[in-house]
Amino acid sequence: MTFERLSALIDKEIGRLQFNSRPENLYEPMAYMLGLGGKRIRPLLVLLGYSLFKNDPEKITKSALAVEVFHNFTLMHDDILDKAPLRRGQPSVHEKWNESTAILSGDTMMIRAYELLENVAPEYLPSALRLFNQCAVEVCEGQQMDMNYEQQEEVSEQEYLEMIRLKTAVLLGFSLQLGGLLAGANEKSQLQLRELGIYLGMAFQLMDDHLDTFGNTGTFGKHIGGDILANKKTLLLISALALSNSENQARLADWLRQITFNDQDKIDGVKSIYKECGVEKISHEKIQSYESHALGVLKSLDGDESIKDMIEKYLYKLKQRVE
Amino acid sequence: MTFERLSALIDKEIGRLQFNSRPENLYEPMAYMLGLGGKRIRPLLVLLGYSLFKNDPEKITKSALAVEVFHNFTLMHDDILDKAPLRRGQPSVHEKWNESTAILSGDTMMIRAYELLENVAPEYLPSALRLFNQCAVEVCEGQQMDMNYEQQEEVSEQEYLEMIRLKTAVLLGFSLQLGGLLAGANEKSQLQLRELGIYLGMAFQLMDDHLDTFGNTGTFGKHIGGDILANKKTLLLISALALSNSENQARLADWLRQITFNDQDKIDGVKSIYKECGVEKISHEKIQSYESHALGVLKSLDGDESIKDMIEKYLYKLKQRVE
Repeated sequence: MTFERLSALIDKEIGRLQFNSRPENLYEPMAYMLGLGGKRIRPLLVLLGYSLFKNDPEKITKSALAVEVFHNFTLMHDDILDKAPLRRGQPSVHEKWNESTAILSGDTMMIRAYELLENVAPEYLPSALRLFNQCAVEVCEGQQMDMNYEQQEEVSEQEYLEMIRLKTAVLLGFSLQLGGLLAGANEKSQLQLRELGIYLGMAFQLMDDHLDTFGNTGTFGKHIGGDILANKKTLLLISALALSNSENQARLADWLRQITFNDQDKIDGVKSIYKECGVEKISHEKIQSYESHALGVLKSLDGDESIKDMIEKYLYKLKQRVE
Repeated sequence: MTFERLSALIDKEIGRLQFNSRPENLYEPMAYMLGLGGKRIRPLLVLLGYSLFKNDPEKITKSALAVEVFHNFTLMHDDILDKAPLRRGQPSVHEKWNESTAILSGDTMMIRAYELLENVAPEYLPSALRLFNQCAVEVCEGQQMDMNYEQQEEVSEQEYLEMIRLKTAVLLGFSLQLGGLLAGANEKSQLQLRELGIYLGMAFQLMDDHLDTFGNTGTFGKHIGGDILANKKTLLLISALALSNSENQARLADWLRQITFNDQDKIDGVKSIYKECGVEKISHEKIQSYESHALGVLKSLDGDESIKDMIEKYLYKLKQRVE
C-alpha cells in the first residue's frame, strides 16, 4: 500500500459521489464545493488509521468520505457566518448563489455525510454514529466560540486553544479514530489515534495562524496579514498582549483601535511588535510541542510500521507547505 | 395504554433533554425553540406506530424525540429562509438572536436529532439511519422546491403536491414507520405505516392551506389570508388559475399583480373568486380523498385494534382544530 494509492482511492470515490439532479440549486452547490478541491486530509487520515491494522482500505473508502463531506458542509455554513466572499480562490456558495441556498445546501450536505456512514459495517455503526455526532457537535461549538471571541474583549490563551481544538482538531482526531474503529482496532489504539489527530489538528491550525502572519505569499498561497487586519485574536495577538512591554502594548492597542489605516503599514507595524516581544518564537515552540506530542503518540501506536512511516512522512509533507 | 399516557411520555422526555450549557448562544435557542410547544405530532406518531405491535413505548421514547428535534431544526432554518419574524406567536430564533446564531444552532439541533437515534437498538440502527437520512434529504428538497416555486411563474398541481409531500408528509410517514421498525414489525407493515403517514401529511398540509383562506381566526388561531396576501401558490390558487372563467382569471391576475392594496380587500376579493370557481369544494374533496386513503390503510394494518382506534381518534382530534 502506497500513499499515492490511498490518495487515488479517495479521489476516485469523490468522483463517484452521486447527487440527485433536482432541485438543481440544492445539489449544484454541493458538487461545486467538493469540486473546489482541497487536500482531502480528513478522509486520508481515515484510510491511514485503518491501514495501520488492515490492508483493504478500498472497503471503507465510502465511509471515509463522510468526514470530507461533513468538513465541506462546515465550510459552506462558516463562509456565510464569516461573510467570506471566497473559498479556495473561488466565489463562496452564498456569493455564487445566495445565502438561502447556502444554508439549505449545507443542511443537505450534512445529511449526505450521515448517508455515507450507512456504509459502515453494522457492528461498528453504533460507535461510529456516536463518535461522529460527538465530533460534529464539538465542531459547531468551536465555530460558535470563534464567533463569540470576535465580540469578546479579552480572550485567554486557554480559551483560544480550546476553540481551535473544537473547531479544527477534533475532526482530525475523529478521522483517525474512525479508521481504527473500522479496522477493528482495540479501544486503546482508537483513543491513541484520536489523540494523535487532535495534536496534529492543533499543530496545523497554529501553523496556519503563524503563516498568516509570518509566511510568504509565494509558498503559503494565501494573502498574508489577514488575521492582523481583522484583529483576529490568535495565539500571536493573545501572547503579544500578555507579554509585550508597556510601550509595545500601547502601540499594539493603538493599531487595534485604528479604523482607517494603510493595510501594509498595519501588517508591518503589528508584525514588528510580534517579533520584538518574541511571540514568533513562542508560536513556533507551541507548534513544535504539539508536533512532538503527535510524533510521540504515533511511535507508541500499535499497527503496521510501514503505515506509521507513511503517516510521519505525510505530516512532514503537510508541514512543507508551511515552512 | 391511553393516548394521554403516550403524550405524557413525550412531554416528560422532552423535559429531560439536556443541552450543554456552553457556548450559551448555541444552546439557548435550541431550548427556546423546543419550549415554544407544538402538538408533538411526529413523536406521538412514532409511539403510536410502535404501540400497534408492542406495549412498552417508554423503551423508545428517546428515539422518538429524534423526529421532533429534527422538525424543530427545520423550523429554525426555514424561518430564516422565509424571513418569518414569528414562530408560534413568539419571535423566531433569527429575530430573537441573529441569523448566524439561528444557522449554527439549527445545525447543532440537526446533529442532536442524530444523537437521539443513538438510542435505537443496534439491530434496527442501520435501517433507522437509512430511513431517517432519506427522509431528511427529502424534507430539504421540499423546502428548496417551496422556495423555487415562489420565483417560478407557473406551478402545476402535481408540482405543488410533490412539494408538500416532501416538505411535510414524508416526515410523518417516517415517524410512523420508525415506530413500526422499532417494534419489529415486518416490512409490509412498515411500508403501510409510512403510506399512512404520508396520506395524513398531505391531508394536514392541504387543510392548513385551506384554513389559511377559509378558516376563522378564533378556531384556527392563525392570521387568516396570509397565503392570499403573499400570492402563495397553494392548491387553491393553482386550481383557481386553471379553472376560473376568463372574467375571474382577469380579476385574479389583477390581484396577483397589485403591489399596493388594502389587505382585507385583497383577501375578500380573492376569496370570492375562489368560491365562485368552486376551488373551496375542490380543496375540500382533495383533503377528504387523502383522509379516506389514510383510513383505508389504517383499517388494513396489522396490529392492536385498540391502538388503531386511538390513531383514528387522534386524526379526528387533529382535524377538529381545523373545521
